[in-house]
Amino acid sequence: MNKVFVYEQLVRFAHCDPAGIVYYPWFLDMAHSVKEDWFGQGLGHSHFALIRERRIGTPTVNLQCDFLRAVEMGETLRWELRVAKVGNASVQLSLTAKRNGEDCLKVLQTIAFMHLDTRKAIPIPEDLRPRIVEYLIA
Amino acid sequence: MNKVFVYEQLVRFAHCDPAGIVYYPWFLDMAHSVKEDWFGQGLGHSHFALIRERRIGTPTVNLQCDFLRAVEMGETLRWELRVAKVGNASVQLSLTAKRNGEDCLKVLQTIAFMHLDTRKAIPIPEDLRPRIVEYLIA
Amino acid sequence: MNKVFVYEQLVRFAHCDPAGIVYYPWFLDMAHSVKEDWFGQGLGHSHFALIRERRIGTPTVNLQCDFLRAVEMGETLRWELRVAKVGNASVQLSLTAKRNGEDCLKVLQTIAFMHLDTRKAIPIPEDLRPRIVEYLIA
Amino acid sequence: MNKVFVYEQLVRFAHCDPAGIVYYPWFLDMAHSVKEDWFGQGLGHSHFALIRERRIGTPTVNLQCDFLRAVEMGETLRWELRVAKVGNASVQLSLTAKRNGEDCLKVLQTIAFMHLDTRKAIPIPEDLRPRIVEYLIA
Repeated sequence: MNKVFVYEQLVRFAHCDPAGIVYYPWFLDMAHSVKEDWFGQGLGHSHFALIRERRIGTPTVNLQCDFLRAVEMGETLRWELRVAKVGNASVQLSLTAKRNGEDCLKVLQTIAFMHLDTRKAIPIPEDLRPRIVEYLIA
Repeated sequence: MNKVFVYEQLVRFAHCDPAGIVYYPWFLDMAHSVKEDWFGQGLGHSHFALIRERRIGTPTVNLQCDFLRAVEMGETLRWELRVAKVGNASVQLSLTAKRNGEDCLKVLQTIAFMHLDTRKAIPIPEDLRPRIVEYLIA
Repeated sequence: MNKVFVYEQLVRFAHCDPAGIVYYPWFLDMAHSVKEDWFGQGLGHSHFALIRERRIGTPTVNLQCDFLRAVEMGETLRWELRVAKVGNASVQLSLTAKRNGEDCLKVLQTIAFMHLDTRKAIPIPEDLRPRIVEYLIA
Repeated sequence: MNKVFVYEQLVRFAHCDPAGIVYYPWFLDMAHSVKEDWFGQGLGHSHFALIRERRIGTPTVNLQCDFLRAVEMGETLRWELRVAKVGNASVQLSLTAKRNGEDCLKVLQTIAFMHLDTRKAIPIPEDLRPRIVEYLIA
């Protein structure tokens, strides 16, 4: 319980806009990478294999974001992933991205488990559920 | 009052992922295009000129999204933009993207007005405020 | 023969980088949209249906680009597509993007026809070949 | 002389298209990251500082790419950067991306040095030239 998955992301030139700061859809792209690595490294099951071999996807069904501070190229964001809620077929992730200890953005992201062939929601796979629960905020 | 800004977006191959549906950060990129065209066509003030000539940006400070239906390449999304709230220095946009009349996603997006040189929030420019208010949901 | 397919693209904030000009990979993304619309509107066969129903993709195998002038947000690029060469299983496209009559970039792009299930090259489909040839530079 | 800069890139879900392989503009985005890290780690001068503090950009003026093999999510590309030519104001980079020792794509990319305020070409900065030359293919 209470595990945290940490992911570091260098903010690149390509993430930034003519105002010199991260174009916000890239924050959501980064959040996807955090989730991807959490599956592989945190839960011990490759997200690529989940899709390719088990034909299970994890689409986002709800997103709530607070963008607290502008972020510039060359800075490094420390993303922290925790689990806020575990449902039957969905998980609410709590993501925070920090720069030098200051929160830059906070994301609550609800993902569902879906079979890619039927595009129907399915329960959280039984092998993954206990590992997901380890990241639940106490 | 009660105006709606409409924007049509063809969903392209490039928006879609190996699951064959829109990769969700692209929905937020589309939402940015809706806002951009709303300024130019709906409010009668180019968003490009706002940034370049007046050095005013409109960063997103809060985002709430419901992704209701998967969207595939070749489909056309009809985005509708309305204004949910007008504050002193911020505006909450209400966006809905529909396919054949069905809601595919809903976004509540709060944008602030910011001076790009100081990166400080500024009040909604007085020339824009009355035009923004025309899109307020009654 | 000698047909030209024209596609207009507004350069958006999201295409531009902290230097205030188009981040060049977006030019290639635009080139993909030109090709996509050329299939649907120029050749009369939806590129989406080609992929989805006939399981034929058109991957890029070679690319040669000259970036001649920086392009800024708010400008409109007029893309012109012609066919430089038609092979057995590949087509070389000649794309030029102009702003107010001035060439901003030139692209020679060789695409192959590939069956998506086998990922093997296939000959240009017979129904498409004569329509492609109409765009051949005399 | 003869130095090689190596950069490893995990191919993510977000890089891939409905055909299940990398959407090719992302290869050019990756190539930009290789260049960015080469400046910081290979040449010992942050590309971010070059832009921000010295107001020098390195736009791409010519690009030649061969896409040799399709690349899928979950695979890791080993990018190798060498210098093919050094001019007065431009450098031609030679990039190869390999998967398990096999070439997947080859890029020849000519970058210029440009002052961001004047948008004029400038000579290669004298402090960088000797370090760039170390990567020249013998």
